[in-house]
Formats: sequence, structure tokens, C-alpha cells
Amino acid sequence: MTLARFAHPVRVYYEDTDAAGVVYYANYLRFMERARTEWLASRGWSLVELERETAIVFVVTRADVAFRVPARLGDLLDVGVDVIDQGRARFIARQDILREGQLVVEATITLACLDRSTWKPRKMPSNLLEPRT
Amino acid sequence: MTLARFAHPVRVYYEDTDAAGVVYYANYLRFMERARTEWLASRGWSLVELERETAIVFVVTRADVAFRVPARLGDLLDVGVDVIDQGRARFIARQDILREGQLVVEATITLACLDRSTWKPRKMPSNLLEPRT
Amino acid sequence: MTLARFAHPVRVYYEDTDAAGVVYYANYLRFMERARTEWLASRGWSLVELERETAIVFVVTRADVAFRVPARLGDLLDVGVDVIDQGRARFIARQDILREGQLVVEATITLACLDRSTWKPRKMPSNLLEPRT
Amino acid sequence: MTLARFAHPVRVYYEDTDAAGVVYYANYLRFMERARTEWLASRGWSLVELERETAIVFVVTRADVAFRVPARLGDLLDVGVDVIDQGRARFIARQDILREGQLVVEATITLACLDRSTWKPRKMPSNLLEPRT
Repeated sequence: MTLARFAHPVRVYYEDTDAAGVVYYANYLRFMERARTEWLASRGWSLVELERETAIVFVVTRADVAFRVPARLGDLLDVGVDVIDQGRARFIARQDILREGQLVVEATITLACLDRSTWKPRKMPSNLLEPRT
Repeated sequence: MTLARFAHPVRVYYEDTDAAGVVYYANYLRFMERARTEWLASRGWSLVELERETAIVFVVTRADVAFRVPARLGDLLDVGVDVIDQGRARFIARQDILREGQLVVEATITLACLDRSTWKPRKMPSNLLEPRT
Repeated sequence: MTLARFAHPVRVYYEDTDAAGVVYYANYLRFMERARTEWLASRGWSLVELERETAIVFVVTRADVAFRVPARLGDLLDVGVDVIDQGRARFIARQDILREGQLVVEATITLACLDRSTWKPRKMPSNLLEPRT
Repeated sequence: MTLARFAHPVRVYYEDTDAAGVVYYANYLRFMERARTEWLASRGWSLVELERETAIVFVVTRADVAFRVPARLGDLLDVGVDVIDQGRARFIARQDILREGQLVVEATITLACLDRSTWKPRKMPSNLLEPRT
């Protein structure tokens, strides 16, 4: 099952750019994490609640990223989250970044659900990838 | 009493610059924190030990910073630490940043010594600002 | 003349925090720059237009910042911009950061208007601090 | 031909960590870029010279990264650069990050050599991947 793509807007500020005049490559991963956080929030979960209620934390275990065209100062980016696979204690998200429909960055991000203190895999809350009621 | 100035070298990488072609202003504060950490290390204290042995954490409570000339990609900066005042639970450091002797940034940084869990002021270890033996 | 305070919302993500569990001090300056950029945009100017149309760039020359209480993961911050003084080629902004009405950071930021290539002071566009029509 | 692995040491500071108590995932990519810059420098090229003398810039086009174990505040990391493939206008580097011999992050990074102004592929200087004499 593929859930519908969630999109989060990100404006490019000076802090995101570098002396080559474009967005510094590592910063796209920050944009992706913001989108994942807002996606969880849109489903009724905050990171703070997740830690407090369940003592779990999500950690990126793989990031496969293709940088297609550079984004620049002032650009408004659309950062997507689209869960393409999920298991007991991990899920994989497709996270493409668009600018006016053009593909800027393509990424496949694997996240593991870990226990906050032992840093060992933990089963995801069964309702995490579905909206809370 | 003023302790002798401690200097820590910092190379400017792409990550530190922005689309105006210079070091992004907030990043000088990162350089200053690196210098403070190395200064503590040079006195025999690591941040990790401080937390584990004493449950204290240092927090910046004031930063007064004048940005004189811009630093650029590839520059080698000399980031200083010079304690100019100290009390029971705080100290003030002069933190100037130089490039080949030229003043790039002048800063006065006030740090408070806090308890890691209560976030309340804590007396600094008496030997913190002197070398450990 | 003091223009009315402009407020820009900022959510605190993992990227903004550090191992002490709070927002890393330099990152408040990134939040302030985002707010200044959105404030200019609200007045009809984009940074990109400013560079292209007028070849000017705004540079922070002083930042005097008091860190009052720590912000944490998930906090929603209100980052203000309030021009408290202006000259020919510089202006001073009060930039307080609030969380649910509580003062988190107080800052006074001085900005200079510079020529993009010479990096020398340039008279600000006369209508910059007033809305464009 | 595989050139010998180049290693660059990186200390983990507060700025690199997040509220989960570990290095924030995007920051490993900053460490890798520092190592690539120092590797070029070790071969007699600075980024600034490359731009000035040849008008080229290196851009990451792919990053495939596996995050194995978390690094923490105070850790001393060894960030590697090992060119595993090269073409006319791009090269691929293996960039593993170790802590006391333990693998922390494994990465394969593809870089393109681009013209600074057109952002089009450019043949790499023939001697770039060999030491200058």
C-alpha cells in the first residue's frame, strides 16, 4: 500500500545556500526531515509525544539521494513524503523535492524505529502510519 | 585576572558560506563554540566528562558580536578564547576571530554554568578555569 | 518612527537542537534571518530582486543577543522584526523571539546596506522600509 | 586505479549533534565535504584556486549513505576519501567514516565537474587526481 504523497513547502534562505550560489547539498536532507516531521504531525503524532508516550525515536539508516538541478536563494520548494514500504520496525519513504513541478532532488530514505535508551529496534506503534482518530 | 588568549584554527568550507560569497553570520558563533570546547579540552576537561562527572552544562546567556570584515571560502581563521571575567556560576570570554592578524569578528560571550537536569545555575568546579594536574 | 512588529513563525526541528536537548544558540540567528527575509517579502521586496535590481546586499554588522530560556524540539516560536532606527545605509532591528508569549531570546541586530561587488556602504532604496505600491 | 585512502579527522561538537543525543544525519555530509576539500588541498589544489584558475566547481550529483552506528558529542571521527572511479567530467569517491576503527557511516559520493557560470559539465583538469609537481 502506498499512502498519498504528503507535501511540505520550504523557502530557501541565505542559511541554506553556499558560496557556489546554490543550496548546500547536505541541507536538502534537513528539508526532508522537516517534511517527515510535518507529515507525522499531519497524522496526529508529534516527535515529542512519540518520545514521551512510547520512548521511540526514528533514525535514518539509509539515504540514497540524486541531486538533479540546483535550487537557489528565494526558491520555494515542495518537499514530499511518500511511504513506499514498511515493516515491523522500519519504513522507507520516497522524498522528492520539486520546484514549480521540476524535479530538484530525488531521494529514498530508510528509517528505523528505535528504543530511545537502548538504541535497539522497536516495533512501530501499529497506528503510526495511519491517521489517529 | 586574565588568562592568556587561547587560539583555535578554523578552515572555512563551503558549508560555512552563503550565496553572498562570505561566511554566513551565525556560523561564526559555531566557530566560537568549537574554540571554547578545545580551550576546555586544553585545560583537561571534555564536555562529556563535565556532564558525566559533574552533571553541569555551559550555556551561552549573552553574545555581543561585531562583524568587521567578511571571511571567505578557504580562509584560515584564528578563533580566540580569553576569559575576561568570572563569577561563581558564570564567566565572560572575549572571543575575537582573526585572519592573518586582521580582525574579522569581535565578540563578548557570557556563559552560565547550569545543572544538566534542573537547568538552574550551579557553582563552577573550582578548578575549571585552571589547568588540571 | 517605529514600524509595527512583524512576526514570523518558526517550528523547532531536530536540525535546530543539540545534545543538551535545546536549540543550539547560533540557530536563533538563522531564525532571525528567516524573519527578516519574510519581513522584506511582506513589504514587496525579495532578496533576489534586491540584488538584481539594485545590486545591494544586507549584511549584519552587529548582533547583541540575550538568551533567556531554552527552546526545545517541537516548539513553535514567534520571531519578530521591529525596525527601531534607520539611517542612510543601515538600520537597526529589534528581534525578539517568543514562545506562547514568553520571551525566549532578545536581540538587537544592526544591518548595513552594501554594494554587492565592492562590499562598500550603499544608500538604501528610499522606499525599502515602506511598503511598495 | 584506486588511489590510497585519504583520512581527515573531525571532532564532534555540540553544533553537530541533535536532541536525540547523536550526530544529526545531514551533518555527516558536511564532514565528508571537509574531507574532500582537505584531500584536494593535500594534492595541491584549493577550491578557490580551482575556481579562479579553471572556473570549475565540483558538485555532488549522488550520495548513497548508510548510517551504521551513531556518533556522539566529543567523538573523534576519521573521514575517508578514496576515489573508486573516474571519468572525463566526474568521479566517484568512497567516503567511510570511522571511530576508533569502527564503521560509523559508509558512503558512495558521485561528483561532477561543472563550469562555474554555465553549470554544464566540464572536463576535469587532467592532473587533478594526481599530485601537482
